[in-house]
Amino acid sequence: MKEAPATGRLKLKAQLFCGVEPALGPGKAMLLEAIVAEGSISAAGRALGMSYRRAWLLVDGMNRCFVDKLVETTAGGGRDRGAKVTEAGRVALAAYRTLEADMIAAAEAGPLAVLRAMLRECPEEHDVVPGQ
Amino acid sequence: MKEAPATGRLKLKAQLFCGVEPALGPGKAMLLEAIVAEGSISAAGRALGMSYRRAWLLVDGMNRCFVDKLVETTAGGGRDRGAKVTEAGRVALAAYRTLEADMIAAAEAGPLAVLRAMLRECPEEHDVVPGQ
Repeated sequence: MKEAPATGRLKLKAQLFCGVEPALGPGKAMLLEAIVAEGSISAAGRALGMSYRRAWLLVDGMNRCFVDKLVETTAGGGRDRGAKVTEAGRVALAAYRTLEADMIAAAEAGPLAVLRAMLRECPEEHDVVPGQ
Repeated sequence: MKEAPATGRLKLKAQLFCGVEPALGPGKAMLLEAIVAEGSISAAGRALGMSYRRAWLLVDGMNRCFVDKLVETTAGGGRDRGAKVTEAGRVALAAYRTLEADMIAAAEAGPLAVLRAMLRECPEEHDVVPGQ
């Protein structure tokens, strides 16, 4: 789902760290939502165009950073066993989405207007780019 | 200047767009600060470990997105001619830094505490990673 390009659009990437490890950010939040919708890590990964390995690593990363696991896999073997977002996962996901919304609201309330007023409708053409 | 890794650290990337083109973000803001300090695009690029071409493209991108240029190069030829951040550039840079600070403050005031309380001190060890 791409946003329509609009002048003055603000793109936010908020990443929460546990030590040096990214614990939760936009990609993991999307993955949690996809697991809620799809019911397994592999299906969630597919829905996001992500390899199983990549999705598994993101889930493992989240689970290792939080006191309570955010995702639980159900019994059974292999890639197709189910997974569900735990109560802790739902709380963390909701808090992350609120965090993003609060940050955007703070930007909208403040200096974003100054910047937007200074922007062109669309970029000018390139000058001649110097060679390397 | 790396921040010390601390649990619950929040990393923010705020990017302002002009159409589909990124007009101002963390990299361009750092480059503006380096041009103020160094007085030329090439020296600013060197200070940030960035090629001249890369620094030039970032400056060109900013200048094409804003009504008034953020950086002006002084007369003379080649890479070593001087550059300065214009009044518009200083206003945009200050507004961008305020924007970041306001967004971080909004996060600190709100749901970040919920997330931080859920985090471990440091990540657990990896489980066995599934093969590709």
